[in-house]
Amino acid sequence: MKLLSFSHNGVSSFGAVESDRVIDLGRVLPDVRDLSDALRQERIDELRTHVASTPPSLGLDEISYERTFPSPGKIFCIGVNYGGRNAEYKDGQDEAAKPSVFVRFPSSFTGHEQPLVRPPESPQLDYEGEIVAVIGKGGRRIPRSEARDHIAGLALGNEGTIRDWVRHAKFNVTQGKNWDTSGAIGPWMVTLDEIGDFEDLHLTTHVNGELRQDDTPATMAYPIEFQIEYLSTFCTLEPGDIIFTGTPTGAGARFDPPRFLEPGDVVEVRVPELGTLRNGIRDE
Amino acid sequence: MKLLSFSHNGVSSFGAVESDRVIDLGRVLPDVRDLSDALRQERIDELRTHVASTPPSLGLDEISYERTFPSPGKIFCIGVNYGGRNAEYKDGQDEAAKPSVFVRFPSSFTGHEQPLVRPPESPQLDYEGEIVAVIGKGGRRIPRSEARDHIAGLALGNEGTIRDWVRHAKFNVTQGKNWDTSGAIGPWMVTLDEIGDFEDLHLTTHVNGELRQDDTPATMAYPIEFQIEYLSTFCTLEPGDIIFTGTPTGAGARFDPPRFLEPGDVVEVRVPELGTLRNGIRDE
Repeated sequence: MKLLSFSHNGVSSFGAVESDRVIDLGRVLPDVRDLSDALRQERIDELRTHVASTPPSLGLDEISYERTFPSPGKIFCIGVNYGGRNAEYKDGQDEAAKPSVFVRFPSSFTGHEQPLVRPPESPQLDYEGEIVAVIGKGGRRIPRSEARDHIAGLALGNEGTIRDWVRHAKFNVTQGKNWDTSGAIGPWMVTLDEIGDFEDLHLTTHVNGELRQDDTPATMAYPIEFQIEYLSTFCTLEPGDIIFTGTPTGAGARFDPPRFLEPGDVVEVRVPELGTLRNGIRDE
Repeated sequence: MKLLSFSHNGVSSFGAVESDRVIDLGRVLPDVRDLSDALRQERIDELRTHVASTPPSLGLDEISYERTFPSPGKIFCIGVNYGGRNAEYKDGQDEAAKPSVFVRFPSSFTGHEQPLVRPPESPQLDYEGEIVAVIGKGGRRIPRSEARDHIAGLALGNEGTIRDWVRHAKFNVTQGKNWDTSGAIGPWMVTLDEIGDFEDLHLTTHVNGELRQDDTPATMAYPIEFQIEYLSTFCTLEPGDIIFTGTPTGAGARFDPPRFLEPGDVVEVRVPELGTLRNGIRDE
């Protein structure tokens, strides 16, 4: 299933996509507030039965995409993960034994086809194409061998960053990673039954059609299954939590001179199995 | 007003404390889910009228304290702030121009008189006594001169930390700051009308009666009003968001040899105007 959050005539809902049509599941399940709530209530399997019995009522061209997960629980982000990323920092430090973990708030993300916002405080809006893992079954101290059982599905993310604000302080990147509407999630979540080995997913990011990022999770220092094990060591993962699993080399800051995003640019994050997350840029 | 979250006979509620009695406001306002929800709905002033007209129904000795803010929005934490804290790192770096900001999840906190949990993965559970600022009115790009208008009140926090996990990675401290039930918030929120200049608040932390931390916000490199201005530059603050405003020198990790917390220890974080937040330690 491809599950999405959308609005139609100004009313928010959630549903499933079949070819270019949308099955409106929010109308069928009035006691489920949104797709995050469906995850939290562990009702994704129930959605499947409704998808089988409910005809699509809308075309994809009639909806506005919303952030796929409107009210996620915890949002973890894994830093410096894909092959070559540690070398990009040019700080002479070896790769760390454990991943860098930071947190984003929901308000820092918008949906597919909605513009990312460049604030007046900085010209350094940058893209980071990512695969987003969505927790479907909670747990603590989940062994990596069982990690897939806890994932409901995957989505695409643009972990948009205000690059100069990432380096404001001695530690931590929070303030460069949480500008309102600086990133995106979408276009939908693909349930895990439609996804094979994570290592075979081919992640690319294009800016104005030019390839900038191109890698697969096979080069991750901290594979997605390990991330589930590591994060669940210190805190209980809950259904509806999401994990931004890292970005490949090739963000705009890594070019010399850097190539930051400007109004008129279009960023496309793509994995064939997950679709394409497309966002323009606008000045606030 | 002193507003708290508590349970009585296994039922969670929220209320106000008058001397050693509790006015149960949850019973009076069934459409308010918890104290965080009252903040989010901007109904704190309304609580004041109910406090004036509702007799206390419980003694403080009849309740169990819960985390003061059961469902906070964003939880920001400010690092390396009070006088002398930068020097404690002994890394030869000057104080940063901007504060370190990291994020904690609600599940990392418990309430007053509840034990902090030391996990089997580490013997390095450490205390950090803090003043917690609670957002009562939202906003973006709030000038520091108007910051107080956006604060509903203050509470005490123990920003309990698993110290060795803070240094797992190249950047970011998330995984040392988010162990389930490793910190505490309480005993209650004191509304801002009862609080004078922040610089006059005298914050101490005692472990087993021994003074370990002792300072006032007058030594902060990044005063609370500045924190509101800075955080609201990159994201919209919402009612119910909370800010851990930094800890003074003297955490257990700063001693040689370090003095980490063990079962049987009792940590007391105190500001006379805000009360005393007391927590024991238990092994998971």
